Amino acid sequence: MSGFAPPVQRLVTELSKLPGIGNRTAQRLAFHILRASEEDAGALAEAIREVKERIGLCEVCFNLTDETRCRICQDPRRDQGLICVVEEPSDVIPMERTHEYHGVYHVLGGALSPIDGVDPEDLKIAELFARVDAGEPAVREVVLATNPTTTGEATALHLAEELRVRAPSVTVTRLASGLPVGSDLEYADEVTLGKALAGRRAV
Amino acid sequence: MSGFAPPVQRLVTELSKLPGIGNRTAQRLAFHILRASEEDAGALAEAIREVKERIGLCEVCFNLTDETRCRICQDPRRDQGLICVVEEPSDVIPMERTHEYHGVYHVLGGALSPIDGVDPEDLKIAELFARVDAGEPAVREVVLATNPTTTGEATALHLAEELRVRAPSVTVTRLASGLPVGSDLEYADEVTLGKALAGRRAV
Repeated sequence: MSGFAPPVQRLVTELSKLPGIGNRTAQRLAFHILRASEEDAGALAEAIREVKERIGLCEVCFNLTDETRCRICQDPRRDQGLICVVEEPSDVIPMERTHEYHGVYHVLGGALSPIDGVDPEDLKIAELFARVDAGEPAVREVVLATNPTTTGEATALHLAEELRVRAPSVTVTRLASGLPVGSDLEYADEVTLGKALAGRRAV
Repeated sequence: MSGFAPPVQRLVTELSKLPGIGNRTAQRLAFHILRASEEDAGALAEAIREVKERIGLCEVCFNLTDETRCRICQDPRRDQGLICVVEEPSDVIPMERTHEYHGVYHVLGGALSPIDGVDPEDLKIAELFARVDAGEPAVREVVLATNPTTTGEATALHLAEELRVRAPSVTVTRLASGLPVGSDLEYADEVTLGKALAGRRAV
């Protein structure tokens, strides 16, 4: 577009590639960066570079870390006998936010989806089995916390079946599906409501 | 928050400083950058650095440019006798989007606001008068396209009064109202802005 110098246009283009950032928002962010101090703009550019340079995967759980083992795996207060299996590193955040989980994690790096060419070998599934098999420390329970979507459910089912055969002494659980707390029955979709009904418990 | 390695936390913090980007969105963007290829993340960091390094102000109109003079000032097809005065470089974009303006610009770098300590000396007002006074090329008309806000109106009034005294032969116009009052030029749709331009009136 006329009026944009090439470096400005390049910045707008790069910002537009971010999720949920359209062309207008990208322009607004670009003009903000242009108005910002050298320090602030430099800090943002540096943070992007640093995160790509220094962040890798934890050798135990495949969560993001800047060390060999992530903070959670290193924490002696965490229960190493309890493993929560999630799809992505970003799924660890909401679990931690509950302040009710004190075990460790295992990040698969996605969910099984044969249609998209994602097979068990493409995820950190063999590594999960190795952790359970090694038994050091002994694993008591595996919580399957993959997303309540078609692919997440398929992944949980696959893992549950495999674990039942490989490690019959390990308890395998799945996050409960049901109505979100604070929601209204009137607006619940039928699938969620059906699951809530099927999973009803005595009071 | 536990589970975030320091470089990830730093990136989230830096992203949160962008306008309209809250903590949750910053986390989402950070995880996107972590998943992105080295090339894409590098291109974004580089675009931020480049824009701060290479972009300066046009020596004539104070729009953003990577050269001494901006593309619009250099364009022989633009009418140099017609100057549109705007507050910020970002205000040039919506004007250009109307495709109805073929003159040049003058970017003030803000609006008069004595309360905030913004006086005429803090804006490129003397430079505007110098362009008009120099008369090379001769200026026929100055369109005041500051925002339809209190400070924008005050700035337009100040400029109109000064220009009437200094350059009585120059026509001074203001964008027609038709722009919603209290809004921001940057977010005006092109049709409204085009109508406002076409209906500009002498002050």
